Amino acid sequence: MVPLRLALAQLNVTVGDLDGNRRLVEEAIRQAQAWLADLVVVPELAVTGYPPEDLLLKPQFVEANLRTLARLAPWTRGLVALVGYVDRDRRGRLFNAAAVLAEGRHVATYRKQFLPNYGVFDEKRYFTPGTDSLIMEAQGCRLGVTICEDVWEEQPIRALAAAGARLVVNLSASPYHAGKLKERERLFALRARRNRVAIAYCNLVGGQDELVFDGASLVLDARGRLISQGAQFREDFLVVDVVPAHLRPPTGDGASRGARGRVVVVPSVGGDRPRLPAQRQRAYPPVEEIYEALTLGVRDYARKNGFSTVVLGLSGGIDSALTACLAADAVGASHVVGVVMPSRFSSSETQEDARALAEALGIERRELSIEPMFQAYLQTLAPHFGERQADVTEQNIQARIRGNLLMALSNKFGWLVVTTGNKSEIATGYCTLYGDMAGGFAVIKDVPKTLVYQLARFRNRRGPESPIPASVFTRAPTAELAPRQTDQDTLPPYDLLDRIVKAYVEEDRSLREILQTNRAAPETVACVLRMVDRSEYKRRQGPPGIKITPKAFGKDRRMPITNRFQQQ
Amino acid sequence: MVPLRLALAQLNVTVGDLDGNRRLVEEAIRQAQAWLADLVVVPELAVTGYPPEDLLLKPQFVEANLRTLARLAPWTRGLVALVGYVDRDRRGRLFNAAAVLAEGRHVATYRKQFLPNYGVFDEKRYFTPGTDSLIMEAQGCRLGVTICEDVWEEQPIRALAAAGARLVVNLSASPYHAGKLKERERLFALRARRNRVAIAYCNLVGGQDELVFDGASLVLDARGRLISQGAQFREDFLVVDVVPAHLRPPTGDGASRGARGRVVVVPSVGGDRPRLPAQRQRAYPPVEEIYEALTLGVRDYARKNGFSTVVLGLSGGIDSALTACLAADAVGASHVVGVVMPSRFSSSETQEDARALAEALGIERRELSIEPMFQAYLQTLAPHFGERQADVTEQNIQARIRGNLLMALSNKFGWLVVTTGNKSEIATGYCTLYGDMAGGFAVIKDVPKTLVYQLARFRNRRGPESPIPASVFTRAPTAELAPRQTDQDTLPPYDLLDRIVKAYVEEDRSLREILQTNRAAPETVACVLRMVDRSEYKRRQGPPGIKITPKAFGKDRRMPITNRFQQQ
Repeated sequence: MVPLRLALAQLNVTVGDLDGNRRLVEEAIRQAQAWLADLVVVPELAVTGYPPEDLLLKPQFVEANLRTLARLAPWTRGLVALVGYVDRDRRGRLFNAAAVLAEGRHVATYRKQFLPNYGVFDEKRYFTPGTDSLIMEAQGCRLGVTICEDVWEEQPIRALAAAGARLVVNLSASPYHAGKLKERERLFALRARRNRVAIAYCNLVGGQDELVFDGASLVLDARGRLISQGAQFREDFLVVDVVPAHLRPPTGDGASRGARGRVVVVPSVGGDRPRLPAQRQRAYPPVEEIYEALTLGVRDYARKNGFSTVVLGLSGGIDSALTACLAADAVGASHVVGVVMPSRFSSSETQEDARALAEALGIERRELSIEPMFQAYLQTLAPHFGERQADVTEQNIQARIRGNLLMALSNKFGWLVVTTGNKSEIATGYCTLYGDMAGGFAVIKDVPKTLVYQLARFRNRRGPESPIPASVFTRAPTAELAPRQTDQDTLPPYDLLDRIVKAYVEEDRSLREILQTNRAAPETVACVLRMVDRSEYKRRQGPPGIKITPKAFGKDRRMPITNRFQQQ
Repeated sequence: MVPLRLALAQLNVTVGDLDGNRRLVEEAIRQAQAWLADLVVVPELAVTGYPPEDLLLKPQFVEANLRTLARLAPWTRGLVALVGYVDRDRRGRLFNAAAVLAEGRHVATYRKQFLPNYGVFDEKRYFTPGTDSLIMEAQGCRLGVTICEDVWEEQPIRALAAAGARLVVNLSASPYHAGKLKERERLFALRARRNRVAIAYCNLVGGQDELVFDGASLVLDARGRLISQGAQFREDFLVVDVVPAHLRPPTGDGASRGARGRVVVVPSVGGDRPRLPAQRQRAYPPVEEIYEALTLGVRDYARKNGFSTVVLGLSGGIDSALTACLAADAVGASHVVGVVMPSRFSSSETQEDARALAEALGIERRELSIEPMFQAYLQTLAPHFGERQADVTEQNIQARIRGNLLMALSNKFGWLVVTTGNKSEIATGYCTLYGDMAGGFAVIKDVPKTLVYQLARFRNRRGPESPIPASVFTRAPTAELAPRQTDQDTLPPYDLLDRIVKAYVEEDRSLREILQTNRAAPETVACVLRMVDRSEYKRRQGPPGIKITPKAFGKDRRMPITNRFQQQ
């Protein structure tokens, strides 16, 4: 065989933007043609964006997706394109599919066989699983086609290898969480080695509501060794020459064994092409990787929803400091407004830190005291509250005044309010519904407090400048909603809290198991679990935010609000 | 055969309340024993409550459910109990199951074969489908066991009938929507007639977050004729004697034909029992049925989440009037607080109507002017807003002050805030996030405005008294957030709007289809669809509320926020 030239177009498509997505795929096809590639691959459901959710229940949406796909076929002169789209059969059943477009026609279709229906995925809500495999023959090499989950299972690759495939292509939309890339690389290497097939994996990139797709598309040889890899967290176009040394030798007759399906022979380009060098990316260290994921998540939420400016409250604490940095890195400092909203409980130190941060980051700063409103609320409510002691009520009023002010600025100027609550707070309900939880996007909602500090330290280290004042790191965390308040009046130390939250929320451990693996007072752990359970109603009304852990609050964790289960 | 005495215990269990649910099932068993019943049936997943959602991912929850089931078996002396619970196999796979408890032991298990994964259902996220049917032999009669969705499909009943079953028992948790009862009755009658089997259907009753289960359990004979029916919207205990005339004659050898599974012979009670009269319920007329569903939904949300008092804002409009009536009927007028919060735009007429309503209903009334806070906000924001015209910003500030006041009362006194927004508003985003949308439970969020009027008229007609002043029905709807404002400044007439919303949201019709079936200006319809699409971010942060239509906002309709699909 001559070398097989693959182009993997790691696109940032947008859910529902059929015309925009079509233009991105067309551009990828043109670019692949310019590279004289044999095959260009785009991500899973590139036509519709991923996940399209209940748009799929609208027949007019599925129709429009089919029309969009039909407009792509004519562009495929001289190469083959594998394009993710929604297929529909005569009975109206939907399939998560890949179209083989070649010589201006839609020549074959592969339908995803394994439909994820766990975690953030609901594919069985929409799709019928495919039953047949698809093998293409190009440049004398057999290529098997798979979509995302298909390769997380053992069976499809095994069947394709048995049917003579020497390279398996995977169209994917694999959401990011910390550590997922390594997991993916290990899995693909294992699948390649075990089945003696090369793997070409094309992943989506970009943010969609709570999900970030991280790209990092890759090509492995039949021994599981990395040939080439695309960038993480940005669009990329990977062109790879797969040569015989990357593949196991072809089997005798190439007859289909074990796989139900068909072989499609696609045209070859052939011709002389200078050999391409392999592409490799610097792997991000763990904390930087998360920082990049968060930046992309904010940038795409703002951009895809039509916001150019982001506004947030600056308290002088670490959470709002980190969120401001992320916002500035995502949309540019000149498009970020930080609002300082002091009350009678705000210290001059925290206000100074908030100002210093805004200054160092180069973002616009506004100051609005909440005292006049707070006074008015207290006076209005006084006849109703009578002799009752001040409690969390008065704290929430302050937080809600701030929420109202930020929303007023948002309404007047069309800015996106981003919230600054971290996962530790949102888990325990140490936050105010309609107060600090008010906003369109919760940037660090899946980031535990201990990781907030690591990310903030990373950002100061990386530069430019060290925007977060040193005192922000050393001051005891406080909501400043009552005299001499600190978070640890209410919560256990954050390193312990974060371990409990991880065990309970992400790993579904029981009270007993958590006590076995953590040195902590049983009443402390039990209290945290109760706080998590009782805050479900708050989380249900919180804004979406970026998933960076294996289990985020949101689509990942669907708990009833009405729930009397006693943790054991 | 002697008559077979069935007891269907239509229980109101609570998700996660394993001990409480166990006590309800025990009480049902004792009651069935007192009636000398042969068989007692409780609803689907009665042990855990339905739907348990991601509690099922916690192994300790599944364990606790198994221990709870084990504690029920010893009570089953002299009868057989069919109890819904979560089964687990050695590989850790979960099944939505029914235990056959008899003579103190767990003698057999049926595993649900058809798992709904559409609409509000996510059963494929958790459960593996069962493969085997289960037939019990009692009093010389063969009974097939099914769970909920199993009878919505044709195959399981057909297989059971072929295997000699003359009666099919169904454990169910079937969520209510308007018209669902009739749909169910028609379906069961068809299944009974076609397969010549009697059907005994035991449904859950009660509210769980967004869902109301309406009970109305029933027994049909082999010709599909109703023998007995339980109450709708309240707990009930239905005891029915099934006699040979209700059944088709037994087939020759009773050998299993077509069904994979087994036959379990369960002990008979026998003995002389006076024949029972059939139970029938008055069917609710359509509007009253919805009123009862809403009342149960509020009552159970409050009760199961530990609230005794409900608070809401009274604007003098129809939405808050209806919501106040529902709250008073749900938890008792003495447990409802209505808060009148006038601004500079509130007319004396609406304030008077709010007071008259509170008086007539007998609920506590509080009055808090929002002017002092509104003034403070306007002054604080003036330097930032500069010369800009007043717009929706100032309207939202007022709504959010009211939200903050209601939440302050909730925080101080432990009251549940219920919101008063209807489906027409929530669909179009004609409501303020963190303002009138602020609260724990959205009573009428799935009730279109035109139906709000019908429900309010029904409530006035039904009595006691006619709490809603006549002027509330005749005044043009207004948010009173700006001078001389009416809803129709922004929205098309409600009868048209509600038809568009139903077609677009509930039926997923395209713009073109809606124009074909409604006399309306294309730009009006297109504008409504855009409003619906653009308000997804608001709905995502709204409180849960009661589903009464085939498709409610919430788990029923999972739309992306980031979504550029252009309606066509």
